[in-house]
Amino acid sequence: MLSKMHCLSSGNEVNFYYRIVVMARSVKVGVIGFGTVGGGVVDILQQNRELIKNRTGVNIELKSVVSKNFSNVGVEILYAKKLSDYNDVINDEEIDIVVELVGGIDVPFDIISKAISKKKSVVTANKALLAERGHILFRMAEENGVTIGFEASVAGGIPIIRSIADAMVGDKVSEILGILNGTTNFILTKMFEENIEFEEALKEAQRLGFAEADPSLDIDGIDTAHKITILSQLAFNTFVDFNSVHIEGIRNISLMDIKYAYEMGFVLKLLGIAKLDDDGKVEIRVHPALISKDNQLASVKNEYNGVLVKSKNLGITMYYGKGAGRYPTAVSVVSDIVEIAKNLDNPRRVNKISHFTEREVKPMGDILSKYYLRFLVIDKPGVLSIISKILGDNNISIASVIQKEVMPHEFVPLVMVTHHAKEKDLMKAVAEINSLNVVKGSGAVIRIVDDLK
Amino acid sequence: MLSKMHCLSSGNEVNFYYRIVVMARSVKVGVIGFGTVGGGVVDILQQNRELIKNRTGVNIELKSVVSKNFSNVGVEILYAKKLSDYNDVINDEEIDIVVELVGGIDVPFDIISKAISKKKSVVTANKALLAERGHILFRMAEENGVTIGFEASVAGGIPIIRSIADAMVGDKVSEILGILNGTTNFILTKMFEENIEFEEALKEAQRLGFAEADPSLDIDGIDTAHKITILSQLAFNTFVDFNSVHIEGIRNISLMDIKYAYEMGFVLKLLGIAKLDDDGKVEIRVHPALISKDNQLASVKNEYNGVLVKSKNLGITMYYGKGAGRYPTAVSVVSDIVEIAKNLDNPRRVNKISHFTEREVKPMGDILSKYYLRFLVIDKPGVLSIISKILGDNNISIASVIQKEVMPHEFVPLVMVTHHAKEKDLMKAVAEINSLNVVKGSGAVIRIVDDLK
Repeated sequence: MLSKMHCLSSGNEVNFYYRIVVMARSVKVGVIGFGTVGGGVVDILQQNRELIKNRTGVNIELKSVVSKNFSNVGVEILYAKKLSDYNDVINDEEIDIVVELVGGIDVPFDIISKAISKKKSVVTANKALLAERGHILFRMAEENGVTIGFEASVAGGIPIIRSIADAMVGDKVSEILGILNGTTNFILTKMFEENIEFEEALKEAQRLGFAEADPSLDIDGIDTAHKITILSQLAFNTFVDFNSVHIEGIRNISLMDIKYAYEMGFVLKLLGIAKLDDDGKVEIRVHPALISKDNQLASVKNEYNGVLVKSKNLGITMYYGKGAGRYPTAVSVVSDIVEIAKNLDNPRRVNKISHFTEREVKPMGDILSKYYLRFLVIDKPGVLSIISKILGDNNISIASVIQKEVMPHEFVPLVMVTHHAKEKDLMKAVAEINSLNVVKGSGAVIRIVDDLK
Repeated sequence: MLSKMHCLSSGNEVNFYYRIVVMARSVKVGVIGFGTVGGGVVDILQQNRELIKNRTGVNIELKSVVSKNFSNVGVEILYAKKLSDYNDVINDEEIDIVVELVGGIDVPFDIISKAISKKKSVVTANKALLAERGHILFRMAEENGVTIGFEASVAGGIPIIRSIADAMVGDKVSEILGILNGTTNFILTKMFEENIEFEEALKEAQRLGFAEADPSLDIDGIDTAHKITILSQLAFNTFVDFNSVHIEGIRNISLMDIKYAYEMGFVLKLLGIAKLDDDGKVEIRVHPALISKDNQLASVKNEYNGVLVKSKNLGITMYYGKGAGRYPTAVSVVSDIVEIAKNLDNPRRVNKISHFTEREVKPMGDILSKYYLRFLVIDKPGVLSIISKILGDNNISIASVIQKEVMPHEFVPLVMVTHHAKEKDLMKAVAEINSLNVVKGSGAVIRIVDDLK
């Protein structure tokens, strides 16, 4: 396995330098999709082939790259074949690993399922596909004795998949709180720091390339929901149906609430939340959330991602880094390629996701949370008393109330923070309050997420 | 590899539940050392055997535990043999993996080297051993076709070893900044938050079990130095001699400097620092350091550890969690046991540390840094001018100066922050300044570490 290369003696200290002997057979890779991430993967595989070989003994050969258009990627393909039909990679018997970086759902599903049926392992960064049809693909992979690498599908360059799957293999995760979408985190950071409303911050994000022309997957929370679905399946060893995820985005967040909440000690973030409750049910949801300023996630700003994990034995751990971008994502793809390559002939290789426990998803109405409530009310005596009564009648107790300065048109923001309450009680109370004549315009209901302890 | 267990159809959605088929042969483990960490490892292996089997297909059997004293550990050994001589584990042909959790250097070296020569893989949490003699052990391991797991040796429960070795396998690390010692971080946090001096904070840490009766390994920076040595060998693929690490601890830190620096926007931490400079030389050092309040490490408080890594492709990533304690450390040990078990029959298994690049360690005098300087001077005209001239004559330019209020005995703290300067120039200037008649008592020189960008 090893050959000592040379043995240098310098003074009293003897240093040994050695290299791992490279195995005869190289591992052949086909990359399908040559865009932002594909370009990064090709670049790293070309530039760091020797480095990877020296580190791991695995000689990874980029054999083919598939794309409809090889121009304007900013990366030159040095040796690999340029192909236009992905079937030419899937049907190439020499290819060991297929890297799917196409985007969408149907085409990548076709690519991955065909590759698996040809006994090829697959690496993908496709969170939508894995969240929505991963259960089918992981089963196929196990049946065919191959593996699917998906480190890049969640939080780009942060090694959260291997941290949960490998580092916590002897541990039980009970809660995950994640800032999993750089676009929305960038927008929320800008709103707060530059005192601007959502629409303006979105435009700035688009101008700087942090948001797409059609930003809805990001700002409506879908992207975060895909990622938290994958993390929960991994962490809780259970199947979580993507359609059961409660999803709210940040379109309706107003600067006013970010500022009021900050005065009360909170920072607003779009969180993906997955919890394994004491009753054995899974909570899974995506929504704007207030966290305390001391929370480790509060300092995750701009386009960065952060994932906070609570597990029985490790306690609290946190992982921070870039959630997107050519090279951060490509490094994660390459890490999967190398891991699969190292295990090609390993009889004990396994997929990181396997479902072996059946669990119920808790209906959103049943969750417990503290809430930040903000109503615009007419400034006249008795309003607070009416609203407090409605809350009380619905089993919601108030932790603090702030009546803000009068705004134009005589509406006053009334801000309240509740103690823990049941979501369905809270929503019922808020609907009653909003139907009052003294309440005007749109209020705000934002869940407050407790610090992990 | 997989057998479908049952296939449930509920409504329109078909859910597949499956389990990995467990391989016939179990992997047999012997744990040597049954103290804090050993107890945790035994507990996890006993409690989570089924969980690990379901997740990975690997059946890990704890066969033997070695200790001189099996009482007062708080963990009951259920099935494993209790032995008193570690040679009985090493010579047991059935044992696949030896877990060394003894402490010290000579005895664990004997255990590990003997185990390796018997073709057994090893897991250890022993940072001192790996930092000081790891190069010998890793070479032996490669020569014998076995692996050494050492995730628990650095930052306890934070998966920093696999993050660098596996997630960054296609990346090049250029800098690591680590809060790697919970004891000193606890002491520094308490000094700041409770306005107490070092000695009092140390006593509190000892009372709460965060510092040992003889705390010198921690507070003098040796423990941090062991860990940063291991990380630099891993990240830079080079041999770093532990004796070449510049080490300063926190014994001489005074509350006054923590407070003055905080007023200037800095937080004081004991950092392990490893850098691969543009000239190809390695910087490796441990010392109290000032970092900006916005630095991700600034919010790592109390007994927590944090590691900030800069690499070419990922950019900045950060890892946060508990650096010590029974269960955090034990989870990392167990993660290594499982990884080795999964790879027992893998022809491509490799050690994470292999040296293939020869690099020079940069002498401490040659490093560049900004500095916080604090002198106690006699409050009379001309003193600032004399001190400024000495700094200027030594190529050190001043970024800011604060003259603090007069203290008893007419000495005035004079606080300065420099621009980047060469360490040897700075030290020469400080020696000159300290020899002046107008300067009294002990001053402070604390390096300011730039934020990673």
